[in-house]
Amino acid sequence: MPTVYIQRRERFSSAHQLFNPNWTMEKNDEVFGKCANENYHGHNFVLIATVKGEPNPETGFVINLVDLSRIMKESIIDKVDHKNLNKDVDFMAGKMASTEIMIIEFWKILAPQIAPLGAELHKLRLEETENNFVEYYGE
Amino acid sequence: MPTVYIQRRERFSSAHQLFNPNWTMEKNDEVFGKCANENYHGHNFVLIATVKGEPNPETGFVINLVDLSRIMKESIIDKVDHKNLNKDVDFMAGKMASTEIMIIEFWKILAPQIAPLGAELHKLRLEETENNFVEYYGE
Amino acid sequence: MPTVYIQRRERFSSAHQLFNPNWTMEKNDEVFGKCANENYHGHNFVLIATVKGEPNPETGFVINLVDLSRIMKESIIDKVDHKNLNKDVDFMAGKMASTEIMIIEFWKILAPQIAPLGAELHKLRLEETENNFVEYYGE
Amino acid sequence: MPTVYIQRRERFSSAHQLFNPNWTMEKNDEVFGKCANENYHGHNFVLIATVKGEPNPETGFVINLVDLSRIMKESIIDKVDHKNLNKDVDFMAGKMASTEIMIIEFWKILAPQIAPLGAELHKLRLEETENNFVEYYGE
Amino acid sequence: MPTVYIQRRERFSSAHQLFNPNWTMEKNDEVFGKCANENYHGHNFVLIATVKGEPNPETGFVINLVDLSRIMKESIIDKVDHKNLNKDVDFMAGKMASTEIMIIEFWKILAPQIAPLGAELHKLRLEETENNFVEYYGE
Amino acid sequence: MPTVYIQRRERFSSAHQLFNPNWTMEKNDEVFGKCANENYHGHNFVLIATVKGEPNPETGFVINLVDLSRIMKESIIDKVDHKNLNKDVDFMAGKMASTEIMIIEFWKILAPQIAPLGAELHKLRLEETENNFVEYYGE
Repeated sequence: MPTVYIQRRERFSSAHQLFNPNWTMEKNDEVFGKCANENYHGHNFVLIATVKGEPNPETGFVINLVDLSRIMKESIIDKVDHKNLNKDVDFMAGKMASTEIMIIEFWKILAPQIAPLGAELHKLRLEETENNFVEYYGE
Repeated sequence: MPTVYIQRRERFSSAHQLFNPNWTMEKNDEVFGKCANENYHGHNFVLIATVKGEPNPETGFVINLVDLSRIMKESIIDKVDHKNLNKDVDFMAGKMASTEIMIIEFWKILAPQIAPLGAELHKLRLEETENNFVEYYGE
Repeated sequence: MPTVYIQRRERFSSAHQLFNPNWTMEKNDEVFGKCANENYHGHNFVLIATVKGEPNPETGFVINLVDLSRIMKESIIDKVDHKNLNKDVDFMAGKMASTEIMIIEFWKILAPQIAPLGAELHKLRLEETENNFVEYYGE
Repeated sequence: MPTVYIQRRERFSSAHQLFNPNWTMEKNDEVFGKCANENYHGHNFVLIATVKGEPNPETGFVINLVDLSRIMKESIIDKVDHKNLNKDVDFMAGKMASTEIMIIEFWKILAPQIAPLGAELHKLRLEETENNFVEYYGE
Repeated sequence: MPTVYIQRRERFSSAHQLFNPNWTMEKNDEVFGKCANENYHGHNFVLIATVKGEPNPETGFVINLVDLSRIMKESIIDKVDHKNLNKDVDFMAGKMASTEIMIIEFWKILAPQIAPLGAELHKLRLEETENNFVEYYGE
Repeated sequence: MPTVYIQRRERFSSAHQLFNPNWTMEKNDEVFGKCANENYHGHNFVLIATVKGEPNPETGFVINLVDLSRIMKESIIDKVDHKNLNKDVDFMAGKMASTEIMIIEFWKILAPQIAPLGAELHKLRLEETENNFVEYYGE
């Protein structure tokens, strides 16, 4: 049976700061540069989820993209969009607000919700600017 | 010898409908929502073919992209562009016109034409909107 | 007082056909080519509305983009998205489904709804593919 | 003599909040919705400056884009990039941080610097998300 | 009668050099920087032509985009695509290969071909990179 | 420990020619078509490097993108941007200037510089036009 990878793109706009509270301000500035700005900066983030599975012969769908979009919105986008990633987001509390850490936390939230739909979360992609991106396969 | 993956992007604009004739109209509406509209809707689709192989030392090419583009156009694009995927396309007859099924059918058509050129079809990507995509590796 | 032009982008996916019922099929094919396909084709259309006005000093807004988006969605997008422009859309009945005619009809619907908000519809832009667009200033 | 319009695109990533301090929190929430979030949110902004003038026959340039880019960076981008528009930017102090107000303030800064180069600032365009934009002609 | 502005986007890939033969090498380097490289550099250029006119009631068209595309390709794209703008293009001979000069020359070629079709060339836009563009209205 | 793939996009604009000096002009024209133009043509190339590794708990970074960007610029972009790939670039001397060969040479330069940073070069992607791309995994 053929395995198809289906993808949904969602967007959110958030403020964040890259800052390690165990370091001096000087060390934070040295490592994170302008990303350490104490009053935050922000981005239009793009999140793309890839789900793999076999198309259902009755629908032609691996998964209904309406469901995938709803899951992404309810469990991720609604919590981070127009929020401060350092201060407003429960699952980021006490964590570095880098895209690497964000994508790992997003995976923990999304993966368990895809399995019950008869498919599997295969990859996440998170775009921070038109030049900087991360991808994660859950391992 | 190094293996390089070369990609060609082509586009087509088609009408389609997501509809299972074994179901009631109510069930179709419930599962496919606005995609079940009886008079069709449509999209600008993007198809990207990835071919893998070793560059020929005399040309520097895995495959001449002029050939790859011509194969994609003659065997796929010319058959689906400005057509109705449910009614006008022989290889989609009797099949669900979802992107998952489309990409599997596109693979069946393209893969046998790449091998004789000394390379291998590695991946197809089909974009339906700026938010919805599928990918397929032929297995 | 400064005049600022504010823009909102919305999207819809529709089927259509370019066909003049007063002509023979041969003439339709000659003029409209593959766009005359009897079973329709389709596109992902992009509609961008530009509204001009003076920013309100209390909000900093010419117009609240939430309102502009809602007006565009309720009066245009909901009527054309996942529809057949030739058969399903009341305000296109009996009209050529070209982007030129579409954009004029969209203007007639949107312009009267912007004036009561204290601003003015300045321009519409309609994108049919990545290569074909029209713009209209209402005159 | 022909007049050509030359354009330069620059980018910046900032945090901001839409908030009127003369209003109650309820009124702010009602008007600005999620944009009023007290801990800020953010965007990747795009700023495009259009300068008009006659090409210099010796260079073929209306203006050297290296100069236009430098002016935009030194007088705008360096002050807003990776900053909080409400708290860190001197020329936005006490002003609503909407794109309408931002683009008017950007104009005041840029226009006087273009005239000495023998050309004229014609238009600014500021993109906040892939769906929301403003344009300003300085009047 | 309503006036609609219709646009067609075409692309070409060319080599060029910015160099004034009346100047010393030092002066050329000072003014043109890396663009003066003696062995040329190159770009993927994008050319967008805007034609204004009244839609023909029988076709719904201001102009058939098939015609506009053909005119752009035959009279411009075929002469500049995969060419050296300084050495291979007759209408650029002896001229500075800046986008400002290119767009003026493109206008001279295109404008006289649009009028016989019952419409008018309104604007040209030429994109050199994702950050640098010029526009021209023929005057 | 989770492995994240982080990506940086950089751009360069170069001239090149596809030409095999061991062949006749006729054979070159037959195989390379307009890409064999003796006076060169050019492109805006996009290079995306993917680096894999475990995020450092103190920074949240697999690798600091400032470092990755600097390495790409100093060792690749500065050598190819606004240059002629056939004549000006030491590491391309005597090689076919196809994207397949370019990406293999880019890998040889970049991979040894990533390992000392505690991460691994995983993939390169090189875009030549909006329709033609290559990818390489170093083997």
